Amino acid sequence: MAYAAIMGYGVVGSGVFSVLRENAAFIEKQLGMPLSVKRILDLRSFSGGDAAPLLTHDAEDIINDTEINIVVEAMGGLNPAFEYTMRALRAGKHVVSSNKELVSVHGAELMAAAAANHARYMFEASVGGGIPIIRPLKHMLLTESVSQAAGILNGTTNYILSMMREHNAGFDETLKDAQRRGFAERDPSADVDGFDACRKLAILLSICVGRYVNFSKIPTEGISAVTKDDFTFASAAGDTIKLIARADIRDNVIDARVAPMVLSKESPLGVVNGVYNAVSFTFSAIDNILLSGRGAGKYPTAGAIISDMAEALRITEAAPMWSGAEAALSAPGEAIDARMVRMSYTDAQAARDAAERVFQTNDLIWIDAGIPNQTAFFTPPLKESEYDAKIRALSRAPGISVKNSFRLYAVR
Amino acid sequence: MAYAAIMGYGVVGSGVFSVLRENAAFIEKQLGMPLSVKRILDLRSFSGGDAAPLLTHDAEDIINDTEINIVVEAMGGLNPAFEYTMRALRAGKHVVSSNKELVSVHGAELMAAAAANHARYMFEASVGGGIPIIRPLKHMLLTESVSQAAGILNGTTNYILSMMREHNAGFDETLKDAQRRGFAERDPSADVDGFDACRKLAILLSICVGRYVNFSKIPTEGISAVTKDDFTFASAAGDTIKLIARADIRDNVIDARVAPMVLSKESPLGVVNGVYNAVSFTFSAIDNILLSGRGAGKYPTAGAIISDMAEALRITEAAPMWSGAEAALSAPGEAIDARMVRMSYTDAQAARDAAERVFQTNDLIWIDAGIPNQTAFFTPPLKESEYDAKIRALSRAPGISVKNSFRLYAVR
Repeated sequence: MAYAAIMGYGVVGSGVFSVLRENAAFIEKQLGMPLSVKRILDLRSFSGGDAAPLLTHDAEDIINDTEINIVVEAMGGLNPAFEYTMRALRAGKHVVSSNKELVSVHGAELMAAAAANHARYMFEASVGGGIPIIRPLKHMLLTESVSQAAGILNGTTNYILSMMREHNAGFDETLKDAQRRGFAERDPSADVDGFDACRKLAILLSICVGRYVNFSKIPTEGISAVTKDDFTFASAAGDTIKLIARADIRDNVIDARVAPMVLSKESPLGVVNGVYNAVSFTFSAIDNILLSGRGAGKYPTAGAIISDMAEALRITEAAPMWSGAEAALSAPGEAIDARMVRMSYTDAQAARDAAERVFQTNDLIWIDAGIPNQTAFFTPPLKESEYDAKIRALSRAPGISVKNSFRLYAVR
Repeated sequence: MAYAAIMGYGVVGSGVFSVLRENAAFIEKQLGMPLSVKRILDLRSFSGGDAAPLLTHDAEDIINDTEINIVVEAMGGLNPAFEYTMRALRAGKHVVSSNKELVSVHGAELMAAAAANHARYMFEASVGGGIPIIRPLKHMLLTESVSQAAGILNGTTNYILSMMREHNAGFDETLKDAQRRGFAERDPSADVDGFDACRKLAILLSICVGRYVNFSKIPTEGISAVTKDDFTFASAAGDTIKLIARADIRDNVIDARVAPMVLSKESPLGVVNGVYNAVSFTFSAIDNILLSGRGAGKYPTAGAIISDMAEALRITEAAPMWSGAEAALSAPGEAIDARMVRMSYTDAQAARDAAERVFQTNDLIWIDAGIPNQTAFFTPPLKESEYDAKIRALSRAPGISVKNSFRLYAVR
């Protein structure tokens, strides 16, 4: 018999509770034992329903209950989630979490504490909601190493960019519409500024390299500067724009970045639209694996948590997926990328001449999108520092204004 | 300490041996114990190398060795793989397999024998090579049920169709080229006639419904009738043609099929090209998960096998994923699909009139691909039996010859 407690009875916590109830017989058969929720921690009070009799406001009722052997942490945030998680692990309880803030900051300590206490700290639901990512990745890492990880890791921004493209609309109006429809938070910064995707990328990279990847050191750009005109030019080239979290890993040095990037609309990530998420791993021998699906939602996230619970109850010992030693990120300015550059001009031929002079080539690929006095082109792959110098030079050319630029996800 | 034996030292078996050697230290750390290969069964003799001293021609040397606790079956075929697997399981050994023939026929019996002997029978590598499919599916089925499974499950046919599209080439010449390049067998029937994809679909469906799905009852069409002209019309409509294995599951009745189908070239399966495989599951709550990657190959397949070995050594008890009770397949002729129909004509207007008369609508969607005296159109969704009657009627119209037709993967 396994007894669980749920800390935090919001969308995710209540989803876990109801899915565990509805699937109790089936889960019991698969686990070989019944799994029953004994306690629910929440600051709020509520009455009625099956959950109310289990409610407590005091975490001690869970941490000190020796019958409870597994805890679902669905509170979010660093505090008090960190303290409660650490104390539950030290009491030998498994903890399963959807809390990407906590995992991205304290994952190494918590997994080490789990291992020292013959318990598991698991968090499949922290990246990609119901998409199975961490468990397959971990299994593949038994025999492979990852050379690139890349993905669309935030559903809100992918929804906004997909709608901008589909309706030929601007960022502000599309964000407002997404907020009305419940696809964006009232304070959308964590999503639209790329921080959510950045934390998820850091978690995946920590697993890939076995060391702590500090998310605050990953260069991160959001999507608020993406315009209607950028999509018009990207579309004219057969491309689209997505917020991509990408990292190349060479000799254990990570070149990571979160930014809106241009990619083919017929590519595996280019067709991932709406609130869908996707992540692709390039391995030494398997080439490439893509995992995609809806990246959030009450029941998918609950499903991921219950999968972790089932594993924790059967595999009670596991080495930490990463240590606290910080992984090396490559020096800023060293990344090599091709880019799409959009500019306005007063004289078309003069603008082309200036760009070709600055980029020292007659082979720039130009995009004609039918917008008066605007053009766009693809640069060759260049180091960030070199590109920055060239784009400054181009901006100084008379009659030219550089409007925006995007890295290409892959070289054309 | 875990001792393994490998039965069958071909591409897969030798891949497992070398990957286990190369990653020995890391695998030991993850498993918490060393995993060492003690015996290799093969009919051939070979000398030199690390494997030779372990070679035996007698399966008894493995089955009767009480120190060996896990067996990799990479022989393929039904016999003697079935007998050896059954005896190993009855001796309490785990068996991990890449043998889709055996799993699709005797999976239920073998899993039952495993469960009765506190051992595991596992076969992640039998579907999709190195793509993690069975393990994630099984985890998701803890809390979800599948309403549709669909995929590109055969790399050879996907390579051939991708090349036909890319090079505007016919089937026969592309097959020959694929054989020359090693992407197709000398006897290509199992692949090009759809049987390989059909067995893999049957395995996935058996997992989804928990009962034996008889692959020989799944309507299966291969790709040898797909022509250059079919691709020309599909492309003109923004579509492509893929060999799709698809099943809808309603009230535990399965409507399954393997056939070349028309789908958007900007859809998640439409962008899966070359030897890549992909499978998509539609769940009750998660909507849709897509898993894709290279579906075969020595090292990816070895990786999947070693993942299974790692799980079997840590989770030694598991309920069989399906029983021997046969699942119900829907009656033939009941499936409802829209189709792309290609025909030649002597009079363009008369051909259109005839098609609209037969399909009783003025809303057929016509495709103009610039091929003289040919056209194609999309039908509305129709029961197979109704469609067959209409297409017979259309074929009788004067000056018309129906050349080919394809189900659409999704309604347009």
